[in-house]
Amino acid sequence: MPELFNVLPPAQAYERFLQHFRPAVRMEDVPTAEALGRVLVQAITAPSDLPAFVRATMDGFSVRAADTFGASEALPAYLRVVGEVPMGATDPLRLGIGQAAVAYTGGMLAEGADAVVMLEHTQYVDAGSIEVLRAVAPGENVVQIGEDVQRGAELVPAGQPLRAQDVGGLLALGVISVPVARRPVVGIVSSGDEVIPPEQDPRLGQIRDINSYTCAALVAQAGGMPRLLGILPDESERLEACARQGLEECDLLVMSAGSSVSSRDLTAGVIGKLGEPGILVHGISIHPGKPTIVALAGGKPVFGLPGNPVSAIVLFELLVTPTIKRLLGHAEPDAFTSVRARVTRKIASAPGREDYVQARLESRNGELWAEPLFGKSNLIFTMVKASGMIHIPLDRSGLDEGERAQVRLF
Amino acid sequence: MPELFNVLPPAQAYERFLQHFRPAVRMEDVPTAEALGRVLVQAITAPSDLPAFVRATMDGFSVRAADTFGASEALPAYLRVVGEVPMGATDPLRLGIGQAAVAYTGGMLAEGADAVVMLEHTQYVDAGSIEVLRAVAPGENVVQIGEDVQRGAELVPAGQPLRAQDVGGLLALGVISVPVARRPVVGIVSSGDEVIPPEQDPRLGQIRDINSYTCAALVAQAGGMPRLLGILPDESERLEACARQGLEECDLLVMSAGSSVSSRDLTAGVIGKLGEPGILVHGISIHPGKPTIVALAGGKPVFGLPGNPVSAIVLFELLVTPTIKRLLGHAEPDAFTSVRARVTRKIASAPGREDYVQARLESRNGELWAEPLFGKSNLIFTMVKASGMIHIPLDRSGLDEGERAQVRLF
Repeated sequence: MPELFNVLPPAQAYERFLQHFRPAVRMEDVPTAEALGRVLVQAITAPSDLPAFVRATMDGFSVRAADTFGASEALPAYLRVVGEVPMGATDPLRLGIGQAAVAYTGGMLAEGADAVVMLEHTQYVDAGSIEVLRAVAPGENVVQIGEDVQRGAELVPAGQPLRAQDVGGLLALGVISVPVARRPVVGIVSSGDEVIPPEQDPRLGQIRDINSYTCAALVAQAGGMPRLLGILPDESERLEACARQGLEECDLLVMSAGSSVSSRDLTAGVIGKLGEPGILVHGISIHPGKPTIVALAGGKPVFGLPGNPVSAIVLFELLVTPTIKRLLGHAEPDAFTSVRARVTRKIASAPGREDYVQARLESRNGELWAEPLFGKSNLIFTMVKASGMIHIPLDRSGLDEGERAQVRLF
Repeated sequence: MPELFNVLPPAQAYERFLQHFRPAVRMEDVPTAEALGRVLVQAITAPSDLPAFVRATMDGFSVRAADTFGASEALPAYLRVVGEVPMGATDPLRLGIGQAAVAYTGGMLAEGADAVVMLEHTQYVDAGSIEVLRAVAPGENVVQIGEDVQRGAELVPAGQPLRAQDVGGLLALGVISVPVARRPVVGIVSSGDEVIPPEQDPRLGQIRDINSYTCAALVAQAGGMPRLLGILPDESERLEACARQGLEECDLLVMSAGSSVSSRDLTAGVIGKLGEPGILVHGISIHPGKPTIVALAGGKPVFGLPGNPVSAIVLFELLVTPTIKRLLGHAEPDAFTSVRARVTRKIASAPGREDYVQARLESRNGELWAEPLFGKSNLIFTMVKASGMIHIPLDRSGLDEGERAQVRLF
């Protein structure tokens, strides 16, 4: 027996979903060099110290600091140069008291040395000895063993998409493969008797599929793998068969209904039959995007998005993107990029409903302004012209001209 | 004969490069459905109107608006329902005076109709006729032909990386392939006698290559195709042969020298021999990253980055990323993401030098603060812990505690 649903505010709708959703993050090992943007499923700790040897940070001479104490231009210390430690040398020179060895930036210190005197603070007296014109303290101009990172320390935490420096840091320690979350496979079904593939010429009354492709792009951006399951007519049996197959093959299913109410009802009927617990939310108090369905079938999320392509994008960002991130074990699945900007014009809204208004951002005298792009909410090119969406909270009946608002960026 | 170079401020250094650089943007056609993030080389204009037919935005009845004028709950208009226009119908029904046809959201209007009466504002009198309880104006509850975009209008400008909605919008008009910039191939050479591949176990004095991999990741992020040309010892002939080969195969060359001054000098010598006009900048007044080379050889950019991995990342972002974007014909090659934040501690800097200080961002009472991560500038894990870099301008001798600064995000 179908439960009776009320239209829920966006946050509550997603909260209800989260109460039932237990994301299963699946792991795979990938080469670290190819892991940019992938999300670690467990923290990586350092297998060894970095650096593994004391390194010079300047060109000059490695010395025992004590041999330079009190040295000055007026009263230099004299040291005998016993050789050099070439870059990449694997057999360090041994320093006795009163001895120095040529050192290179990034190179190893001579054994027994504990500091580096900069080249500028020395001068050769003869081929085999130098004057040191300034004292150095122990540890001066060197990087100590483990100063970058110590063995056993956490290198990169779990749940973080790897950046360029993370990849470099892991490889510096010889971590050449990393356990990351497998990209969740997201099945995408478009339906509607009026919808045709983009490569076809529409006849009067037909429109080309947009949602399959915008959703696929958004899946990829969120870190998932889109799988297009096709465009289906408004026939319950075929839609259900396609959805069941998709649900078996994929980790998450996105169904975008046709524009008409009957197509939406049909999609809702199909989603309701896919498995337990079934439909959790039917209708969200948001504009655009009210006719949205949030469901779980056999533990897998199913989202029924409106056919209107603008609504589909808005609701995808609010519901599907954070869900894909949860399937990736992302530490901050609900984070998104936004800026504060003043609105250039008064915008009306209905209280009790969240509004997202497409806007173009512009800088005026160093301040950020958001110009709302009014237009019917189903026009995709309003979205193309926009750089973000102004958020009007649930409890507001609009925004005044010049008022600061949060603008969610694309 | 080598020109004498002065150390230049970062902006002037890049300006000098731009005076000589003529980026050749090369084009290829790719399927629009796979073009997310690719940069258009020419603006795309609409081959037809969207929508191509008048569409209902509500479920209800398509009508001649004139037939409803004056209608109200007290004095409804009576219309005869002559049929429906199903979703995707290619043969519209024709309406006579006093007639209506069932209309669906997103569906076509009946021929002769110019508005839609919402279902909620009607009621059936008998199976074949309705009462209209509210008048509609012509155009009410419909989207007109070309209202989303008109034939010939610019859909997406050149130089813009395509977003999800752009892909959708182009496909809505049947633009199934797009001319985009070919991804520039960026050759990456690491050198230094001490540098070994990450999969090898370093012996004392050796370090694993970091820069090949951080640079490769940054190339991919900027939209280029990285090609690792290998790790070379500090031998001029081998390095030159590798660089020449790389320059032939690639659109841009990044060379990261070993840490030592002699390795840097050797790299500079090689870059100077690669072709005309040769080295344009040798040394940039920036910390970290001073020993940087900017060159052009046979029209192709060559960047000599410091061996220190932190400097290499900073200079890559400042010099190489905007150059890759120019090779992509990007409309805003110099744009980057930054935020304003207060610094949690006083930071010293030398005037006449730009500083970038790694920092962790945190929100305190709704305000953004940047905590500088002090540490020697050659420690890669300071970069791993950071979420961005505080910028200290050329003319400043530091920042005070609590002062607002620009923080460039990774």
